[in-house]
Amino acid sequence: MSALPGAVRIREVGPRDGFQNEPEVIATDDKVRLVDALARTGVPRIEITSFVRADVIPQLADAQEVLARVDVPAGVDRSVLVPNARGLDAALEVRDRFDTVSVFLSASETHNARNVNRGVAESLEGLRTVLPRAAEAGLHCEAVIATSFGCPYEGVVPEDRVMELARALAEAGATEVGFGDTTGMANPVQVQRFFTRAAQELGDRVELTAHFHNTRGQGLANAVAALQAGCTSFESSFGELGGCPVPKGATGNIATEDLVSMFEEMGVRTGVDLQAVLDAAHDVALVLGRPLGSHTLVAGPVDWRLA
Amino acid sequence: MSALPGAVRIREVGPRDGFQNEPEVIATDDKVRLVDALARTGVPRIEITSFVRADVIPQLADAQEVLARVDVPAGVDRSVLVPNARGLDAALEVRDRFDTVSVFLSASETHNARNVNRGVAESLEGLRTVLPRAAEAGLHCEAVIATSFGCPYEGVVPEDRVMELARALAEAGATEVGFGDTTGMANPVQVQRFFTRAAQELGDRVELTAHFHNTRGQGLANAVAALQAGCTSFESSFGELGGCPVPKGATGNIATEDLVSMFEEMGVRTGVDLQAVLDAAHDVALVLGRPLGSHTLVAGPVDWRLA
Repeated sequence: MSALPGAVRIREVGPRDGFQNEPEVIATDDKVRLVDALARTGVPRIEITSFVRADVIPQLADAQEVLARVDVPAGVDRSVLVPNARGLDAALEVRDRFDTVSVFLSASETHNARNVNRGVAESLEGLRTVLPRAAEAGLHCEAVIATSFGCPYEGVVPEDRVMELARALAEAGATEVGFGDTTGMANPVQVQRFFTRAAQELGDRVELTAHFHNTRGQGLANAVAALQAGCTSFESSFGELGGCPVPKGATGNIATEDLVSMFEEMGVRTGVDLQAVLDAAHDVALVLGRPLGSHTLVAGPVDWRLA
Repeated sequence: MSALPGAVRIREVGPRDGFQNEPEVIATDDKVRLVDALARTGVPRIEITSFVRADVIPQLADAQEVLARVDVPAGVDRSVLVPNARGLDAALEVRDRFDTVSVFLSASETHNARNVNRGVAESLEGLRTVLPRAAEAGLHCEAVIATSFGCPYEGVVPEDRVMELARALAEAGATEVGFGDTTGMANPVQVQRFFTRAAQELGDRVELTAHFHNTRGQGLANAVAALQAGCTSFESSFGELGGCPVPKGATGNIATEDLVSMFEEMGVRTGVDLQAVLDAAHDVALVLGRPLGSHTLVAGPVDWRLA
């Protein structure tokens, strides 16, 4: 496998993407302890929480408190998700507690409508005011395009459409665009073609981030395909937590520990301490009281020691 | 992803590799029904059972009866595993009930000792008499080399050693060599290098088969890497059943349904009816009464229909 990038940046999204999708609300104390542990694994960024309506997503109603209480070392980027202008308003009340804002829309109309109850054009219009305001506040701005590789309601999502949205988001002020395989429809051939094109068309304007789900077990295969196309930024979730609110059953980001294990074994540096991620995943498994999707959490790291 | 093979052969090993590793003995009626279902999915070969000592592996003590009762359509290869000459003797008593014999040894001394209680050289000597006898009986002969990509007891397994064993097995009469990642230690970079070399050194003498486990979630990524190196023969297990008797916890072949889903989505033809495999996996999940590792069994096939 020639000419692979030598290093990648792995962004941990479990505290937001994972905790949001749990049926039970996780105690604030547990969240703080888990974020503090993840912040010491070597991951360069953690998506800590989201400023969403507490009546819609009670799982993250403690966003302000979590941000106030976590102890994230300097150099680790603290990211929060905001769905709209109102979410940004709420986040900016505690502006000193985070570094990056992440916004999102879906590439497909139906998924966008079911997720945020509006059309894609309307979402984009909203982000055209949200992103400049966030940039003015000195925030790093990531825009995630959900259903970039396929929509569970509409099927094929044209690549042209995703590229067009990415360009529009870059023009609106995003310095990073994440491409989400929200319900695990992507395959490695598609992913390699997609990121090769994205690098050509957008690589000089924005950072390109891959966000895969392991819905059909192909998440790591897709990560390798993106890597082969030059992608060096990946979002993943400790314990394989996460999913998507719609449709039901669309569970499972790729597990941070499985991604780190694979990349390090491939000779691709992550800067992440695998055992530290496994410890955090073990902790969250106890908090949730159920088996998680992570494989390396069960099997343990590869052991190359001689007998 | 240029120049991928256009089609692959997927060999179903669940009825042997999977059933052998279940703590409970599966009823013969269930086995027969499941094999008959798998035989109608389009897979070109099914490893149906193994002729092993009933006191050591009671799970497969009904080998003769299963072979007598299954109804496998013409054109679907019926394979059985034999560990040694005594196993071949037992299998040859019902010679007309199968087409292929699969033998095995480990590339590492410690794994071979813990698995079959002898040294690798002794195992190889045994196969030097077993393989010619099987070939004389008109059987297709597959030899699987376990721990080809790493040993859970010894760590690194030298590629030179695996190639040397493969050559020896080919000389002894194997027409196919399977390379087993018995405890899921392989990574995609290693796999692509390995199969590229194997094709160069052995490709004109024997068929080369990849046998991956999903122990650390990388099974499908390794399958893509092998495909990229030109490998077109894969063993997998419906429901992600399977594993290895030693060490404990080394569970999980790659799931046939996940492999079929991924390859078909990539445009690589398998000839396998994904829904038929899912039906069989659903059946075995009910028989075993526990959730399985398969992803596509939970998520369902990718649906590209328009809303």
